[in-house]
Amino acid sequence: MRATRFFISTLKEAPADAEVVSHKLMMRAGMIKRLGSGIYNYMPMGLRVIRKVENIIREEMNRAGAIEMLMPVVQPAELWQETGRWDKMGPELMRVKDRHGRDFIIQPTSEEAITDVVRSDIRSYRQLPVNFYHIQTKFRDERRPRFGLMRGREFTMKDAYSFDRNVEGLKQSYQIMFDAYTRIFQRFGLQFRAVAADNGAIGGSGSHEFHVIAETGEDALVYCPTSDYAANMEAAEALALSTERPAASAALTKTATPGKAKCEDVAELLSIPLQNTVKSIVLTVEDEEKGEAGKQVWLLLLRGDHELNEVKTAKVPGLANHRMATEAEIVEWFGTKPGYLGPINTKKAVHIVADRTVANMADFVVGANEADFHFTGANWGRDIPEGLVADLRNVVDGDPSPDGKGVLAIQRGIEVGHVFQLGTRYSQDMKATFLDENGKPQLLQMGCYGIGVTRILGAAIEQNFDDKGIIWPTSIAPFEVVICPMGMDRSDAVKTETEKLYQALLAAGVDVILDDRGERPGAMFADWELIGVPHRIVIGDRGLKDGKLEYVGRRDAEATIVPVEEMLAFVKAKLAT
Amino acid sequence: MRATRFFISTLKEAPADAEVVSHKLMMRAGMIKRLGSGIYNYMPMGLRVIRKVENIIREEMNRAGAIEMLMPVVQPAELWQETGRWDKMGPELMRVKDRHGRDFIIQPTSEEAITDVVRSDIRSYRQLPVNFYHIQTKFRDERRPRFGLMRGREFTMKDAYSFDRNVEGLKQSYQIMFDAYTRIFQRFGLQFRAVAADNGAIGGSGSHEFHVIAETGEDALVYCPTSDYAANMEAAEALALSTERPAASAALTKTATPGKAKCEDVAELLSIPLQNTVKSIVLTVEDEEKGEAGKQVWLLLLRGDHELNEVKTAKVPGLANHRMATEAEIVEWFGTKPGYLGPINTKKAVHIVADRTVANMADFVVGANEADFHFTGANWGRDIPEGLVADLRNVVDGDPSPDGKGVLAIQRGIEVGHVFQLGTRYSQDMKATFLDENGKPQLLQMGCYGIGVTRILGAAIEQNFDDKGIIWPTSIAPFEVVICPMGMDRSDAVKTETEKLYQALLAAGVDVILDDRGERPGAMFADWELIGVPHRIVIGDRGLKDGKLEYVGRRDAEATIVPVEEMLAFVKAKLAT
Repeated sequence: MRATRFFISTLKEAPADAEVVSHKLMMRAGMIKRLGSGIYNYMPMGLRVIRKVENIIREEMNRAGAIEMLMPVVQPAELWQETGRWDKMGPELMRVKDRHGRDFIIQPTSEEAITDVVRSDIRSYRQLPVNFYHIQTKFRDERRPRFGLMRGREFTMKDAYSFDRNVEGLKQSYQIMFDAYTRIFQRFGLQFRAVAADNGAIGGSGSHEFHVIAETGEDALVYCPTSDYAANMEAAEALALSTERPAASAALTKTATPGKAKCEDVAELLSIPLQNTVKSIVLTVEDEEKGEAGKQVWLLLLRGDHELNEVKTAKVPGLANHRMATEAEIVEWFGTKPGYLGPINTKKAVHIVADRTVANMADFVVGANEADFHFTGANWGRDIPEGLVADLRNVVDGDPSPDGKGVLAIQRGIEVGHVFQLGTRYSQDMKATFLDENGKPQLLQMGCYGIGVTRILGAAIEQNFDDKGIIWPTSIAPFEVVICPMGMDRSDAVKTETEKLYQALLAAGVDVILDDRGERPGAMFADWELIGVPHRIVIGDRGLKDGKLEYVGRRDAEATIVPVEEMLAFVKAKLAT
Repeated sequence: MRATRFFISTLKEAPADAEVVSHKLMMRAGMIKRLGSGIYNYMPMGLRVIRKVENIIREEMNRAGAIEMLMPVVQPAELWQETGRWDKMGPELMRVKDRHGRDFIIQPTSEEAITDVVRSDIRSYRQLPVNFYHIQTKFRDERRPRFGLMRGREFTMKDAYSFDRNVEGLKQSYQIMFDAYTRIFQRFGLQFRAVAADNGAIGGSGSHEFHVIAETGEDALVYCPTSDYAANMEAAEALALSTERPAASAALTKTATPGKAKCEDVAELLSIPLQNTVKSIVLTVEDEEKGEAGKQVWLLLLRGDHELNEVKTAKVPGLANHRMATEAEIVEWFGTKPGYLGPINTKKAVHIVADRTVANMADFVVGANEADFHFTGANWGRDIPEGLVADLRNVVDGDPSPDGKGVLAIQRGIEVGHVFQLGTRYSQDMKATFLDENGKPQLLQMGCYGIGVTRILGAAIEQNFDDKGIIWPTSIAPFEVVICPMGMDRSDAVKTETEKLYQALLAAGVDVILDDRGERPGAMFADWELIGVPHRIVIGDRGLKDGKLEYVGRRDAEATIVPVEEMLAFVKAKLAT
């Protein structure tokens, strides 16, 4: 490609609404252009990256036996009503009426559409397994779109859907997709991590997220550097921090802690480690049929330095539909306002759940259910009845790995892929069955597998940038190599050598752009550093006199001088690594 | 591709709602699957054709210097309000509100979006000309979607937009696109015709439609077999059928024609050629400000065998906003009901426009403005004042070509492409300017160029099918070649030869599918004839004994016997032609 036949439009400054580095750099590099809130034009430079991402995904999906098709952007509401998602999904589901007043949605995913296809086209077990995917425009009406392509409203997603005869088949299809995703992210040239994720309401253990590692990532990824264990924060299991509970050694003592409503302040006041304190979290569960009489109040106990994990909380039997208690409820059940709550001397009976670590603590500090007072020396059995124990908290760095093979570390990631064993969640509602070997109808076992195509661009940049701009991995760079001739209009030697090298690179199948715009070297280099092309060749009269060209890798501090006749092989070697 | 790794789902019968052959065959061949009214899933077999169509378009657009980008499906209403299309477009423009109640549209085309891009990114004449295109999902909320992909609601379109400094530049950009379109349709392997089209409200002569020739086509294409002249019916100029008006020879005679309200019936009653009769068409033009006093009634005169052309009518000065007159208006102005109207003895003064052919007629028959009576022997000047003459009618087969180089013929076509000189239609409303050589802002001159990607599939089939199914041109066939082994599971020889040939074809870059499903030969052949793969190779034990294979072209009545060792070269030769 010659730059004069392409469209390059870089900006010195990012627009004010660009908050994160990837958004700023994509805007400055002219890769995207805002059309509306959370809605972007993919400019020629950005589209090249998207196409490379799509092609890698397509190749690996095909290799894994998935079959490409294309489902519509606008889909009839009837299908979404069949599965209940029409009602369950909130305003992020974009709804639209046609000229006849019929309801449609702009698809955020295509579970319903594909299940509609297979329930009529898949008749026999002989047609299974099958895995369909498409790469299609999606829409999610985010309340607050931001971060450019990281949380836009219109985006491109690859979503695949597998259908199997039984759970074993589903697990195999799932593993095939897991492996394909691993290859895809490896080919992107990005540091990534697959982590076990929570399956939510669907249950089962078959769900993993693929994250691009980036310090700016929104998600905390938990992993064990000395084993295979990896999970997202919602799913990472927190073990008890001591395996046995020490014997009680202190007496239960009501202690004045005036104005010290937080564990940190209590610990400081009493000069004890924060790890000796226990905090109280009060939840309410309502029973719609029984009204006020059916209301339950639960007290969750966490060590003072730990944080509640909402997903784990919802898994405690009885807490699937909890909410935070109101202050009025707290006063009614505990006799005091939040800040001094605890399991001892509650006004009305509450359900108590101790986090695993709290269950093994002794002589701890806990609220006294009286303003400005805590109990010190609290102990299980003696002061508080032994009760329900559960994993309630987020793990922290240094926690023991659940597989017993080391300690956990935490890093930040950006979720760009998700694989999910759906089971019969959709096939049941939509009556998607096949005839088994005995001619009996059976529900299809379904899996779904998504990659946020356009989000990959944002994530790749969040991982790979410097103060000059983007640093694309070669496999998804808009161009692999840029040739920057200096003074091509003045020097025949530069012009001849430039054209020769350009043609040689093209002939070698290299995705090269020749910057023939006639810009000054400074502006030209700044553009390509901003755009992030990984390999740059500079051709100038001074070097040519000695038969030399310059090569600069995007991460290189200095140029490498390469003889003219060796440059092609040099670049090919760079691209091969 | 191995058929067992692909998804093939053919039907014996087309669904009842499929009206046209392309719709029926695409449904039966498993290329598309209905998700909703006018909304289709593109199944794997259909998507392969779409991708081939897209790739040919992409290659030729790139070769012509157009630059690919991607604009969003969902676009803010504000832009459409700037150009007035938000109000002007009817319910075919799909409108949608987001969660905040803001208006959006689902794009039918992207003039506004691209003009929004260039008005900020194109600053100088140095950046011109530029031509952006995208291949993107479109939506048009048709009142009555039908004919499968021929008139769907959601469809894929390639739309390109050129921007130039001046009209000369626009004309060049337009010609480049016209030439690119010619190459694209040639590469599709379809019989097509580019015809001049009417520019509608925008004016100018720069608009052509590209039609795929098909007897089932909705549009009439006018062309001169002995010259380059070609236009669609709206735009094809009708010359007067005689260059001079004969002298009057008959007296004006009021003649009883009881119950003969149509020219055909009058001609039969009077035993004269239909070509001697003149029919009257009455139009009304209202002036909103002046009300009833401003109402004008126009009488258009056409030869009895000719048809009114609405587009030409609207171009007659004063008739831009006409409508058909009501019966009440006709009675008020002519003193009689329709059927016996004419230019002589009208009750009130009407504006008379004669079609060019009528203006050169003499001694003709025309309504007498009295029920059951016509005048015979009517003549211009003597009986009817000489008045306005215009081209009002559709041309018919055998008319003289407007370029004087022969006579016109008419064939049917399906519109699949349109190129259009927009001029400043959008740049004016949206204030899209650039700075010229003198630093003065000038409006951008714009052209737009569309190809209905998914419609191509329907049109190609309407042109190429037989009673067995689709006959794809090789360049857009889902597969170029299918290998049909007979009894692969029983015969090692068949299996070995099949695998060998399959690998040889793959290695030669041939897009081949191996039907390894184990179907019976009859079912297998029927499937591939229905799907329309252009080249079939049959491998069986009987032929292999003599070292022979069978080749059957999709249009061939009989198989060709080819020695095993020559088949690869034979197929490559077929593909090369």
